[in-house]
Amino acid sequence: MTGYGVVEEVNHRPHFLAAGAIKAPARLTLSGRLKNLFDGILDLFERFEPDGVAIETPFLSKNFSSALKLGQACGVAMLAAETRGIRIFEYSPSEIKLAVVGNGVAQKQQVERMVEYLLGSREPGGLASGGSHHATDALAVAICHVHSRLIRERAAEGVG
Amino acid sequence: MTGYGVVEEVNHRPHFLAAGAIKAPARLTLSGRLKNLFDGILDLFERFEPDGVAIETPFLSKNFSSALKLGQACGVAMLAAETRGIRIFEYSPSEIKLAVVGNGVAQKQQVERMVEYLLGSREPGGLASGGSHHATDALAVAICHVHSRLIRERAAEGVG
Repeated sequence: MTGYGVVEEVNHRPHFLAAGAIKAPARLTLSGRLKNLFDGILDLFERFEPDGVAIETPFLSKNFSSALKLGQACGVAMLAAETRGIRIFEYSPSEIKLAVVGNGVAQKQQVERMVEYLLGSREPGGLASGGSHHATDALAVAICHVHSRLIRERAAEGVG
Repeated sequence: MTGYGVVEEVNHRPHFLAAGAIKAPARLTLSGRLKNLFDGILDLFERFEPDGVAIETPFLSKNFSSALKLGQACGVAMLAAETRGIRIFEYSPSEIKLAVVGNGVAQKQQVERMVEYLLGSREPGGLASGGSHHATDALAVAICHVHSRLIRERAAEGVG
């Protein structure tokens, strides 16, 4: 299961376009699951034509098998972006928390609440993430990317 | 750097066709390197039209960053095979040693010597691996696959 979030920058603010998770049918082999992920990402690229892809730097884990799985999914995602010539940006967990909550060591729940607040759904009680933690995590990375772009642009203009 | 070895089964024995390593130019980004690997594998598939792809089950490592890199390369290789509909076979390090040397805990050097012996180059002093350890490792996996296929076939025929 790999979460994704798509935002658009409007007036220097991230606006929600889509979010969800790419999930492979249980019957698929490992390579089939990776192909399902690859095709799912290419579909998203066709639907939304993104300028960039932002991913979270893999967090340190002591578990070999989870690092391996993370590497497989991450490698396939980067390959998909490279295949379509879309630039890849990486942000660390603390950069993402800092950009979304204003605190690099924020709790997961604070991040989730801020994501929903910043990308507020127009439907009452509706959640931008659709209730999926994977989607919320991905939207947080997307918000971080929009903020970082603005900061870089301002720095380049000598304003920030 | 990712090693590969291509063998053909002739009269129930593996015969050397090609071996080497796919290496990315140093200037490439990580995603560029993964694309280079993906394209390199697809090229090999076109040149040799293999019936199957055999890979070594990743060895346990306590190093998170090497597990992640291994996962990235392994994920891309499996995706390439899946993309072309080529069946993937996985063998553990001890299965490979057992098939090549006849001893599941053989030393690396013993494996290397047996690979050269089994796939003996026709040029005097020539090495099937071309002297690359990555290529030797890959050829060992290929030899293991040929042997395992034969064992499976014989078992199915009730001979073994």
